[in-house]
Amino acid sequence: MSAESVTRDAAGPPPVRFGRDHPLPLDCGVHLDDLTIAYQTFGRLNAERSNAVMICHALTGDQHVAGIHPVTGRPGWWDMLVGPGRLIDTNRFFVICSNVVGGCQGTTGPKEADPETGSPYGTAFPVITIADMVRAQVMLLDHLGIDQLFCVIGGSMGGMQVLQWASAYPERVFAAVPIATAARHSAQNIAFHEVGRQAIMADPDWCGGRYLQFDVKPRAGLAVARMAAHITYLSETALHRKFGRNLQDRDTVTYGFEADFQVESYLRHQGSTFVDRFDANSYLYITRAMDYFDLAAEHDGVLARAFAGTPVRFCLVSFSSDWLFPTSESKILVRALNAAAANVSFVEIQSDKGHDAFLLDEPEFHATLEGFLNGCAEQRGLPPAGGS
Amino acid sequence: MSAESVTRDAAGPPPVRFGRDHPLPLDCGVHLDDLTIAYQTFGRLNAERSNAVMICHALTGDQHVAGIHPVTGRPGWWDMLVGPGRLIDTNRFFVICSNVVGGCQGTTGPKEADPETGSPYGTAFPVITIADMVRAQVMLLDHLGIDQLFCVIGGSMGGMQVLQWASAYPERVFAAVPIATAARHSAQNIAFHEVGRQAIMADPDWCGGRYLQFDVKPRAGLAVARMAAHITYLSETALHRKFGRNLQDRDTVTYGFEADFQVESYLRHQGSTFVDRFDANSYLYITRAMDYFDLAAEHDGVLARAFAGTPVRFCLVSFSSDWLFPTSESKILVRALNAAAANVSFVEIQSDKGHDAFLLDEPEFHATLEGFLNGCAEQRGLPPAGGS
Repeated sequence: MSAESVTRDAAGPPPVRFGRDHPLPLDCGVHLDDLTIAYQTFGRLNAERSNAVMICHALTGDQHVAGIHPVTGRPGWWDMLVGPGRLIDTNRFFVICSNVVGGCQGTTGPKEADPETGSPYGTAFPVITIADMVRAQVMLLDHLGIDQLFCVIGGSMGGMQVLQWASAYPERVFAAVPIATAARHSAQNIAFHEVGRQAIMADPDWCGGRYLQFDVKPRAGLAVARMAAHITYLSETALHRKFGRNLQDRDTVTYGFEADFQVESYLRHQGSTFVDRFDANSYLYITRAMDYFDLAAEHDGVLARAFAGTPVRFCLVSFSSDWLFPTSESKILVRALNAAAANVSFVEIQSDKGHDAFLLDEPEFHATLEGFLNGCAEQRGLPPAGGS
Repeated sequence: MSAESVTRDAAGPPPVRFGRDHPLPLDCGVHLDDLTIAYQTFGRLNAERSNAVMICHALTGDQHVAGIHPVTGRPGWWDMLVGPGRLIDTNRFFVICSNVVGGCQGTTGPKEADPETGSPYGTAFPVITIADMVRAQVMLLDHLGIDQLFCVIGGSMGGMQVLQWASAYPERVFAAVPIATAARHSAQNIAFHEVGRQAIMADPDWCGGRYLQFDVKPRAGLAVARMAAHITYLSETALHRKFGRNLQDRDTVTYGFEADFQVESYLRHQGSTFVDRFDANSYLYITRAMDYFDLAAEHDGVLARAFAGTPVRFCLVSFSSDWLFPTSESKILVRALNAAAANVSFVEIQSDKGHDAFLLDEPEFHATLEGFLNGCAEQRGLPPAGGS
């Protein structure tokens, strides 16, 4: 495949299908045949194939990182950062973003047909891990004929993939930017995920995972899961500033169970719109992959060994009010990277917006990214920003 | 009723029934006729009727503060603190603890029969507030012939009741101990409650609140609500110390959706045992009462006015790792009490156990309580601890 053919057009490149001769080996021990990877690209791969930036999406994100999302009709989740002249400048970089394995935006996941039965996989889909997601991205990279990424970048679960990339494929990553993430999912985070999964599986419309065969969806369960999770993405301060105890379209409480408070109305909206764009079984699988992530575990519990001798340049970012992936988790990573004598910089951004700050307009965060990318681009011999 | 007759025997005193001639006026504008209040007492009221301690329970607590709980067979929720020779010494104090209005342990609530229909109230039960709960306790106090409480004490929602007592009935409270609480429920706390309510109401077995008529229970929904809430009662540190990423009875993950991690198994257990002892509609009503609590709102938004000229002696306690009712909420109260020239002491207990620390063995907390109670007892002319 030539570099030109993967330049993004309006519809994006067609999904890549890997046949039975090219299965994806999974951590659980089985191989996934007939793997499809849906992805988007932005910008143009240079002649040296040295300007590729892989963006890894978070739990409920997808490949539509920039431009208009075809399902929601709204800008992509990092449209603020990705585009011509933007921080991740598509005049300069060739940006790749693929939907993770287990996802629901075109890459093979539980809602796709199981070739064994012809019916949607449902819970017959094998449990996948962060390492499996990255393995699939490596297959995509091979397909695109790219040996080394200039940069791999992502927040939250995207940051877990960045860490996995840097640890498992250090020779294929020039620079890595793990944002608002951790080397392993904490007990509290597993607990919140478990609440979401139980909410989904408690919904009778989940039908033991086979809801698509019955033409229903566990809407209520998935909405509750999203509502619980959404609280963890914000900070108490952000919720207080946005909503406080303000009432919704009324002067006094109703003495009932309607959404009296704006924060209730907001959460209900978050739940109901999420259900329209996301698959409940994908939510189960992707949360499980995050829960299972523990980079040190594969290295006898010593995190530094995950990065022994790494040539990768790291820039870690955390946000001061993020209580889902607090700064302490990034510091654990920094210590391990230092112990591995890695090239690492770390910035804690002062923000009161909580975990979701990585998706929002945070000038100090963006300045940090810009400085790191420019420095690495110079090291890599890429033309400076604004150059042609 | 004589003081002797309310001395607790094994079964506890019979519930008090207030007839139609003695209705409970509610904030929502209706009156609750045929009110029953279930309560427990411990110790003996002295001749001066000056040694009564009212303990207010939290969201899922009840009147069985000490002794063996008749439903669970386990010690009462503050058995560690309440009993002969204990910190709240029943050789010294006459302890009263009643189930809140809207509760499900014998006091009138949504699971009791609506006298209008003969069927359980369900969502026909009027929405109640913290002030309503305290009004019912005042009726109980009148019934017991007690003019003034020596002390009113409680944590979390119990602390809200303590604040309401001190604000609305200052002449009937000698000392007040609001623990791990706030003068108003925060946006984040309303949000978590809303998730729980949505989980319950999404369960088809909720039946629009009329599940008792159909001889079912919204078990799954109530369990999810409890699981989500339970996470907020602990700290990340406590969860990490207790469970970390330890697996449940296995050496490796199962690559499935069973409870691989101990924290998952623990949460599921918390959910399922809660369902056995608690009514789902009571959960809706009591969480709503907490959401509605805003002591300043009744005083033109000026919290200090809620305590203007108060003679009550206050001791506020918060816990450093409590993120549900953080120390900042207690400080807001302390500032308001200072502005009202109140007699107030405040201690932040260093603890990593989160909100639930008020129910646990926290020596510094207990020493604080003990000192305050002894000092107040002396001021009140009660015999010293250990006296006969």
